[in-house]
Amino acid sequence: MEKVNLREKLGRIEDHWHPRIVAEVSGMHVKLAKVKGEFDWHHHADEDELFWILSGRLLMQFRDREVWVEQGELIVVPKGVEHRPVAPEEVELALIEPVGTLHTGNVVTARTRTELEWI
Amino acid sequence: MEKVNLREKLGRIEDHWHPRIVAEVSGMHVKLAKVKGEFDWHHHADEDELFWILSGRLLMQFRDREVWVEQGELIVVPKGVEHRPVAPEEVELALIEPVGTLHTGNVVTARTRTELEWI
Repeated sequence: MEKVNLREKLGRIEDHWHPRIVAEVSGMHVKLAKVKGEFDWHHHADEDELFWILSGRLLMQFRDREVWVEQGELIVVPKGVEHRPVAPEEVELALIEPVGTLHTGNVVTARTRTELEWI
Repeated sequence: MEKVNLREKLGRIEDHWHPRIVAEVSGMHVKLAKVKGEFDWHHHADEDELFWILSGRLLMQFRDREVWVEQGELIVVPKGVEHRPVAPEEVELALIEPVGTLHTGNVVTARTRTELEWI
């Protein structure tokens, strides 16, 4: 029941596309990440995934459209929906998704991390 | 898959202690609320509850201690733990909790709302 200061946690993240867990609530993890550049196309078979933009702006690409998600905005990507996050400039964001969700979903890439750590 | 602008949603909330749903992600609801004053002591038998402070500062009271949670900070209240949120000045916050969670938990008061609406 310790509180979490998001700015302090973000200050400890120095790499991109590497989410860290900051909270657990009823089987969900809240993770923080800094991202920059293009991620990989993927989907999550069983998990919805919420992206909450803390700074910057993220382009969320779907196969048939794309959405700019700005600071102070969030978007939910339902399970099964292919998506690719793109960040022309660095973006700080929070992810809310079930415990155990892999950020690269159904594909394994050099960026896939199967053991996510708390920060 | 429409994005949600938190500031725009908050601007439509005119009352206190009345959470509105803005997103659903894998069985959880993200809700927004404005609060001011003292809430009721309660606990949630089965649900953890995350409070994310968007503006202002919230005093979270437990039976044995209390924690000031500031803008940009969050705190998770585990299931079963009695708590009382207190906001001497208005606080804007997000709640993340399982679908169906009642904000007054195990007690029914004049503020209990069993049918929460989307905004």
